Amino acid sequence: MINLKSISGGITSVPGITASGISCGIKKEGKKDLALIYSNPPAVAAGVFTTNIVVSPSVTVCRENMKKTEVTRAIVVNSGNANACTGAKGYKNAREITRLVAESSEISPESVLMASTGVIGVPLPMEPIENGLETLVKGLSDMGGCDAAEAIMTTDLVPKEYAVEYEYGGKKITVGGMAKGSGMIQPNMATMLAFIASDISISKEILQKVLREVTDLTFNRITVDGETSTNDTLLCIANGSVGNIKINTEGEELSAFKEALTQVCLNLAQAVVRDGEGATKFIEICVSGMETDVEAEQIARNIANSLLAKTAFFGEDPNWGRILSAAGSSGVTFDPKTAELHFGNVLVMKNGGSVEGVDQAALKEVMKKKDIRVLLNIGQGNGNASLFTTDLSYDYVKINGEYTT
Amino acid sequence: MINLKSISGGITSVPGITASGISCGIKKEGKKDLALIYSNPPAVAAGVFTTNIVVSPSVTVCRENMKKTEVTRAIVVNSGNANACTGAKGYKNAREITRLVAESSEISPESVLMASTGVIGVPLPMEPIENGLETLVKGLSDMGGCDAAEAIMTTDLVPKEYAVEYEYGGKKITVGGMAKGSGMIQPNMATMLAFIASDISISKEILQKVLREVTDLTFNRITVDGETSTNDTLLCIANGSVGNIKINTEGEELSAFKEALTQVCLNLAQAVVRDGEGATKFIEICVSGMETDVEAEQIARNIANSLLAKTAFFGEDPNWGRILSAAGSSGVTFDPKTAELHFGNVLVMKNGGSVEGVDQAALKEVMKKKDIRVLLNIGQGNGNASLFTTDLSYDYVKINGEYTT
Repeated sequence: MINLKSISGGITSVPGITASGISCGIKKEGKKDLALIYSNPPAVAAGVFTTNIVVSPSVTVCRENMKKTEVTRAIVVNSGNANACTGAKGYKNAREITRLVAESSEISPESVLMASTGVIGVPLPMEPIENGLETLVKGLSDMGGCDAAEAIMTTDLVPKEYAVEYEYGGKKITVGGMAKGSGMIQPNMATMLAFIASDISISKEILQKVLREVTDLTFNRITVDGETSTNDTLLCIANGSVGNIKINTEGEELSAFKEALTQVCLNLAQAVVRDGEGATKFIEICVSGMETDVEAEQIARNIANSLLAKTAFFGEDPNWGRILSAAGSSGVTFDPKTAELHFGNVLVMKNGGSVEGVDQAALKEVMKKKDIRVLLNIGQGNGNASLFTTDLSYDYVKINGEYTT
Repeated sequence: MINLKSISGGITSVPGITASGISCGIKKEGKKDLALIYSNPPAVAAGVFTTNIVVSPSVTVCRENMKKTEVTRAIVVNSGNANACTGAKGYKNAREITRLVAESSEISPESVLMASTGVIGVPLPMEPIENGLETLVKGLSDMGGCDAAEAIMTTDLVPKEYAVEYEYGGKKITVGGMAKGSGMIQPNMATMLAFIASDISISKEILQKVLREVTDLTFNRITVDGETSTNDTLLCIANGSVGNIKINTEGEELSAFKEALTQVCLNLAQAVVRDGEGATKFIEICVSGMETDVEAEQIARNIANSLLAKTAFFGEDPNWGRILSAAGSSGVTFDPKTAELHFGNVLVMKNGGSVEGVDQAALKEVMKKKDIRVLLNIGQGNGNASLFTTDLSYDYVKINGEYTT
């Protein structure tokens, strides 16, 4: 355990990182829609991306550029348009945007990464983006993290930023980031979009390895609606401003960084859930007592994505039968006779059946809370997993019934 | 192809089948909640049941009785209580109910099958059921199919009955049935509850085989909310009143019966979808051009259960990107570059990207309809599958946010 201190400033709290966010005109309402994150000195980058077969060309260009070079200088992000299902033209447009950013900043095109989010199937409006780039580059500032976090939002209600600092070997190290989420959220390798920076010096390979490990325990443990997006992108850059000897192996120093990175990712992932489309509740589903962690996660995911469980939470209804039924149809085998279930600290099911004399007043209090923890103990092993999810409300239907029309 | 004639009367249109349905007091509102289907002469029975690990004791007793004897006389069904997650007491109660029905009807207890539907986790109220059984048995009539179909409803808005007759070898054969559905509908081996009868003479083994085949193409092709219930039960009884020589093998006569059974099951399955909780639309998802039918079904199922696709249909929004994104995250591999998508007869996506010059007026007309057909051709093989589903509306959230409280 290291001593992590939460600090303000998001991604630009990291030394050497500047950012900006502007409205260039992709979104009709004049909201911010173009963001840039810039690192000086140059950084190494790691990334995890969507597992959807249908992939945005922005993701493809990002992946290609990361392979081409050891050096990353900038990340350009547009919202309001996912640049997905846009074919060869979509790829050309993404390449052109990274080229133009490189030109304005006098850096190499491969050192520019890209991400997009918004409606699928509509070609990127290139003119407003091209016209906006100069202002975007000129606006880079070490106070610009919040503007950038705002410019990557779609149906998000609040920008999501978080940063921590800690000391190691007499040096102060900072890890900060931003994320956007809201709908189409069941990340599989990454969330919708998240960008993290650190001033630590670390090899690209080790950064990639640690980012993937951290992702599995943070962004891959959330779900709003069970939908994996075409654009999921999590990027982490590290620019070495700290001046530590470059981390090349496992060890105490890497563990300390991993702890800090985990806290930033977990905080951003939970913020994505809290701001899930139409969400009125933040639900933690903890499944224990399975033979393996993988089985426990499969059960937890089936509960977290169950429409009947989610609508029951919205109705503040302790309908535990729906939880057990969702567990039973998850594809994992268990004997319900040893299962017990708590809502918060109230035991509602024991030996797979109802409990007599449940304190109904206490149960009602639990269900009324904004944060609810559900603990399902299958009672058959030591495997466990936790997932974070939301309820399902009228507003989810409203937001998604009216999105493009 | 045989000449199938749709007839009225549901399950009691079948010679030798009587039924009744009463309100015994399980449901508070005085609605019908207890049904009985009776066969004279005795019938053979086939059944397919839920694959949920968490199984109602009513299903367990039903399965056990089917194994114990070749002869089935009656099916007793209660609504308003699923008798699920009710432990040893739930099993004892189901046994007691089948015993009491047998006693009143002077038949053997094993010849009585049982099914339950309603809230999970609450013990069956035995007193009203025991008090109601005599009236139920006395009320059996060859006009009673509609009362029985009404008595198995929960949040269903309409009773679901269907029957056909056809001629074979100079004899008239009838197949009729009833179903209930509404929520927790993604049958896996059977829908929530459905009961079919025929007057054909057929061996129990052949009936079981043909019922399973028909189920895979009918009840297993519908989904309302992706939830597999604890009580799914489909029973088919055949009492031989026709007097044909008992069907013991494959052949033309079995094919004719299978065709009739398929039409009855498909009609009832589609009626379950149309009456899905909160449904305002009936959506057929047809996926073609995959290597195998199994892969096509996996893609169709992921689209049919996509919250974003379902809310878009509710909003009458031709948001084809959500369809392709759901296809891409189904776990099946394909190249989106050859995929094309129609809403009704309007082509909206070609080569995995948008189509220029789409007839927007025609597209709007398609999306406004109550019945919408979505055709996704992946363009990579001859495998195909169709699924039937609903949109996702405010009312689904309302019904399920307020169900037990």
